[in-house]
Amino acid sequence: MSTSLASQRFDIAIIGAGPAGLEAAITAKIRNKSVIIFESGATHLAGEHKIENYLGLPDVTGQKLNRKFVAHAKNFDLEITADRITEVIDFGEFFSIQGENNLYEARSVILATGSVRATPLPGETKFLGHGVSYCATCDGRAYRDKDTVVIAYAASDETETRFLCQLAAHVYYYPQYADAFSQEPPPKNLELAQGRPANITQSEDKKMVVSFGESTVSVDGVFIFRPTSPPWRLLPDLNIEGNRVVIDRAGKTNLPGVFAAGDLTGAPYQYIKAAGEGNVAALSAVTYLDTVSKLQSL
Amino acid sequence: MSTSLASQRFDIAIIGAGPAGLEAAITAKIRNKSVIIFESGATHLAGEHKIENYLGLPDVTGQKLNRKFVAHAKNFDLEITADRITEVIDFGEFFSIQGENNLYEARSVILATGSVRATPLPGETKFLGHGVSYCATCDGRAYRDKDTVVIAYAASDETETRFLCQLAAHVYYYPQYADAFSQEPPPKNLELAQGRPANITQSEDKKMVVSFGESTVSVDGVFIFRPTSPPWRLLPDLNIEGNRVVIDRAGKTNLPGVFAAGDLTGAPYQYIKAAGEGNVAALSAVTYLDTVSKLQSL
Repeated sequence: MSTSLASQRFDIAIIGAGPAGLEAAITAKIRNKSVIIFESGATHLAGEHKIENYLGLPDVTGQKLNRKFVAHAKNFDLEITADRITEVIDFGEFFSIQGENNLYEARSVILATGSVRATPLPGETKFLGHGVSYCATCDGRAYRDKDTVVIAYAASDETETRFLCQLAAHVYYYPQYADAFSQEPPPKNLELAQGRPANITQSEDKKMVVSFGESTVSVDGVFIFRPTSPPWRLLPDLNIEGNRVVIDRAGKTNLPGVFAAGDLTGAPYQYIKAAGEGNVAALSAVTYLDTVSKLQSL
Repeated sequence: MSTSLASQRFDIAIIGAGPAGLEAAITAKIRNKSVIIFESGATHLAGEHKIENYLGLPDVTGQKLNRKFVAHAKNFDLEITADRITEVIDFGEFFSIQGENNLYEARSVILATGSVRATPLPGETKFLGHGVSYCATCDGRAYRDKDTVVIAYAASDETETRFLCQLAAHVYYYPQYADAFSQEPPPKNLELAQGRPANITQSEDKKMVVSFGESTVSVDGVFIFRPTSPPWRLLPDLNIEGNRVVIDRAGKTNLPGVFAAGDLTGAPYQYIKAAGEGNVAALSAVTYLDTVSKLQSL
């Protein structure tokens, strides 16, 4: 699939299909808003462990709860679009939402991507777009014949790294997982290295310096590949604290038209809290859309 | 019943047994806290209308949801105590909780009394305890042989008003309901009046002046009887805005050890939002209790 769905502009794009995302979708649909829900496949739910305190549904597994949630959404003709969203760009009147498969448009966005397991490295967000990148396909060309570091969290990132190796002079590959390149040997200009990244700084001659505890590497560019897209990757201007998206009690982020709900807003990491926040974020998005419409019709 | 239960000091007293209160109770119980839940009987739930967006339980009536919630609580041996709470007093180490039937003690309090239909009159909270009272039994003696106004919202307040008439010189009775004193004629020193109260001020000679739009009455004391106890009646120092209790994202009020969840914290007035907030308030109360215990054991 590579056709654009941008011909349809949705009222609300919901990124994430856990309890927060699905509750938001149902609430928005009841309020007559058009909704698209994205699920990257990396669901953090669906465990076999018992959930005891989802009020009204005692003693169910996470898996069973999740099935009930999806069935509830289907009652409202809500389908989940399987596409990993990599970037959200605010064009004022609407948001352009870049997925791996397609491009989408929506007038507002609800972030509900679940708990963010990673905290950005010190320096990571500061140099994002200026020496730090999350996407070799997007930014690789800027590092043609240059030296790069890749910090990768899953074997699935090896494909993107191979692409980078076609452009870069040298790639220092720091896998944060076991048995890297065990299926197929890496390209010749890739150097397998070991170390947990500690921080990213810039030297006086504008090189990126990545510290791995006792060792440091100095290169032109740093690529960080994570299995899920943390929200600060989707929207770099998003206000975050540690690894949580800052929202007010209405689910509003610092960006107009962008709302958030669920585990990515911080503890407690509980289904019922996430669902409650999804409800609040959806109703705030509805109010936002109605206010914007009113202003535009003046 | 008039025996005191104060011999048992609960970890958490939850005032209100709707979705916020019951979710809070279950979550607290799972965290091994002792809990008492109060229900005044004035439940705002239990409607016959359909609730469509309580995620995981599609297309149920409010009544059916409420039964499921109570059943879920019963799984955890949580019983609901039928007692209308009239006052909560902070004694530092614990809260004394005054019910109509009994006195209770708890180390923390979660307010979950549901939507507050009434907004306090301008001046009402300012003069509370200094010319304005919610309770003739408690404060009536201060107005012996003096003139008072009673603003009452239900026929059930006529009993308390009769008691006040035994003490006060004159009672101006402003019923905010139909057919006042239709069952039995009022005492002779009671004057039935008509008008919707607008505000309460104080004159230079320290009289309370109640404005009813075009007319005003000047008296020594003003009694306001409402069918439910708004949270600012229970805890006069509670920070409120309009008719909602101000909380942060952790469910904390301005008073240490006092948390709030559900409709009384403001819109949206939705079951799933209330339940989510109950979860958050309970976990914040648990953290509060554990922190206090740690400090006390130092």
